[in-house]
Amino acid sequence: MKKLNTSPISGAAELLPAEQALFDRLKTGIEQTYRNHGYLKIETPVIDRAEILLAKAGGDTEKQIYFVQKSGDQEKAKKEALRFDHTVPLARYVVEHESALAFPFKVTQIGRNFRGEHAQKGRFREFYQCDIDIIGREKLAPAYDADIIATMLAAYETFHLQESVIARISNRKIVSGLIQALNLDEHSREIFSIIDHAEKVPQEKTLAALNSLGLSENSVVKITTLLSAHGSLEKVLEKLNSLGVGNALFAQGVIELKSVFEALKASDYADQLLADLRIVRGLDYYTGTVFEFALENYPEIGSIGGGGRYDNLTGFFTDQKFPGVGGSIGLSRLVYVLRAKNLLKENPIPPLDLEILPLSPAEVSFSESLAKMLRAQNRSVDVYLGEKRLSDKLVYAGKLAKFAVVVGEEEVETGIIKLKNMETGETQEVAADETLAYLLG
Amino acid sequence: MKKLNTSPISGAAELLPAEQALFDRLKTGIEQTYRNHGYLKIETPVIDRAEILLAKAGGDTEKQIYFVQKSGDQEKAKKEALRFDHTVPLARYVVEHESALAFPFKVTQIGRNFRGEHAQKGRFREFYQCDIDIIGREKLAPAYDADIIATMLAAYETFHLQESVIARISNRKIVSGLIQALNLDEHSREIFSIIDHAEKVPQEKTLAALNSLGLSENSVVKITTLLSAHGSLEKVLEKLNSLGVGNALFAQGVIELKSVFEALKASDYADQLLADLRIVRGLDYYTGTVFEFALENYPEIGSIGGGGRYDNLTGFFTDQKFPGVGGSIGLSRLVYVLRAKNLLKENPIPPLDLEILPLSPAEVSFSESLAKMLRAQNRSVDVYLGEKRLSDKLVYAGKLAKFAVVVGEEEVETGIIKLKNMETGETQEVAADETLAYLLG
Repeated sequence: MKKLNTSPISGAAELLPAEQALFDRLKTGIEQTYRNHGYLKIETPVIDRAEILLAKAGGDTEKQIYFVQKSGDQEKAKKEALRFDHTVPLARYVVEHESALAFPFKVTQIGRNFRGEHAQKGRFREFYQCDIDIIGREKLAPAYDADIIATMLAAYETFHLQESVIARISNRKIVSGLIQALNLDEHSREIFSIIDHAEKVPQEKTLAALNSLGLSENSVVKITTLLSAHGSLEKVLEKLNSLGVGNALFAQGVIELKSVFEALKASDYADQLLADLRIVRGLDYYTGTVFEFALENYPEIGSIGGGGRYDNLTGFFTDQKFPGVGGSIGLSRLVYVLRAKNLLKENPIPPLDLEILPLSPAEVSFSESLAKMLRAQNRSVDVYLGEKRLSDKLVYAGKLAKFAVVVGEEEVETGIIKLKNMETGETQEVAADETLAYLLG
Repeated sequence: MKKLNTSPISGAAELLPAEQALFDRLKTGIEQTYRNHGYLKIETPVIDRAEILLAKAGGDTEKQIYFVQKSGDQEKAKKEALRFDHTVPLARYVVEHESALAFPFKVTQIGRNFRGEHAQKGRFREFYQCDIDIIGREKLAPAYDADIIATMLAAYETFHLQESVIARISNRKIVSGLIQALNLDEHSREIFSIIDHAEKVPQEKTLAALNSLGLSENSVVKITTLLSAHGSLEKVLEKLNSLGVGNALFAQGVIELKSVFEALKASDYADQLLADLRIVRGLDYYTGTVFEFALENYPEIGSIGGGGRYDNLTGFFTDQKFPGVGGSIGLSRLVYVLRAKNLLKENPIPPLDLEILPLSPAEVSFSESLAKMLRAQNRSVDVYLGEKRLSDKLVYAGKLAKFAVVVGEEEVETGIIKLKNMETGETQEVAADETLAYLLG
């Protein structure tokens, strides 16, 4: 019989157990941080109605979305699809359940999203995203923008990276205010797009793009001045001041930018903040504060997360106002990049705390008792039940567990076991009922 | 503008935060039990190649599977689909990664699966399943069958149900051996199907179905005797003995059944085991031990989990032998049923430990320090940052948190806070830096 190919689909991260354990440790760090900062966990369905998912999409999103369909359900073609982010289903969720929710609704979603991208290294077709959002009813205090940024910085801390994570913060109202002041509203989308790409192309290309819009020299100078506004808040405010823009939108953006910094001043993260007017977060739904996170000394990695303020996300579902702010860490890509750059202190983690190797069936009962005691203390313990040579059993233990112990007649009789650290090879004699302390190191 | 309907797709469990917190506590209980018993966590992609998923399927599965497809990818129609269980992707995973795995491979998968069933109460189109499996290379000791059953019984314990969970255990070799002895191999599938349905229909219907196969009176008597073999192992062995079946397959099944009970004899679960020859687990891929879990006093709920031994699951992928044993808890349905029958002690859980309500912006800094201290102790704490009347803030806190504290000038000055238990209404004065002890109760 011809055998089927067993590789997973391209663009899926299918991990071995030790790699999965490392991934899960990072995911749990984010999850606990979000929860401890007061974000309530929800899960939306993976499958949603296509009209919902595509309401605000277009372009690439429409091309990348996965439609789902049962055999024979021709009449249902393109009715349902897989979610491609957490934000659109969240907007639906908030409107659907608003009478049962307490606002501001601080919420976290951690799960897989799906995009039919061309698979390539570090780009996945199904990938974990770790989102937090805060949704207000009618209004939402600006201090919540800072809450999202501080919480995400706290989440990155759980990774124990050597590298400093930097938050680059801007406000789209400043950009829109400048565009308004220059009477360039008709070119707004193009200018946002040029700013969005400015970091990735040589400066001449940015200038050429601006000139191709037929802008005045003054306008080009002002926009390039804006693009040079990045660094400490003071320096950036000086640059913005030098633009001499007087309109209300611009001024409001500056006030909001200052207030985010002000709210974070007393936090542990004051020295990880930069103002950076190059950040606009694409042509997305953001309307005020926008931010991206980066590793200080690895600009080539680019954004390792980001988000912003959105005021109109629920407009397709309701006339009520639900202004929100949110951010997302693309965990699958991030772990891939950190591993590739060797930036994670840890190696893949032996998934088990202890492997117990009874020498014969006569020692299984003692072994199970030891396992039971340790399991009650939340340790992960396996008892080897097959028949193999001891040397093979020890190889098995070395692949899976941090510690191993061989249980023979003597151990059962005396209650003294020899705990072997499988990393260092060291062996330690301990009373069986004191094993826990040694496992915890 | 016409507004879009915001309900989730039918057959999806979309939970409010407090319900989600309850669901997650149950899921975490299973997860930790599986891990502590030495099962290594993996995740397979949600999307897999259709030829893999459908290799052994047919009938309902093929009709219920969700194919996924991007717009315009006509040539890829029906190439990829959503996994409908964890077992088929696991078989693929084991063969794909076998050189990197240590056998016996004790593995757990917890995640959503997808079936296009007709949505009805308690039946979901996307649902959580919590699986454990043990895969051997060439052979797998029978004691591992007992390991799966004991681990699943330990997982149910974390639910703290009042009701006893019972494991009903059988072995398909006994049934096959009887069929062989009666020379009824040509009717094997039908007989298995009749046995599988026997509990759900009146006895006359079972008899009629057996008679419609044209069986001899002796054969019908023997099969109905088999169907009456349920209860303590001793009673069941007596019944089986009375059948007078002499073939090797039947004898092997009896030996295996006894060995599972023997291995569980010394465990905490000895009094939760029944032998029950009515259990065959459909027409599935099982080849030896089969088991189902039920709530002792709620037979109408039916199976709350089950599994068995399979020897040929990887046959589509490789000529190597990977015998396995596994089980699954259908968590979405189970939680739905337990809630509907009022069998969970707990109510939905307030998701937060503490809501801190600063009276004015002047108290935010003190509030954030208190929050920071508690977050470092893994407590979930929110600081209310909006502007609202105190009474509204307290209503907000009551919806989300177990405790609340109002922070005003006095609290900042003295460091003494009044901790309010939002369930009982009791208030307790404590030093701010001793809050943790009170939150832990």
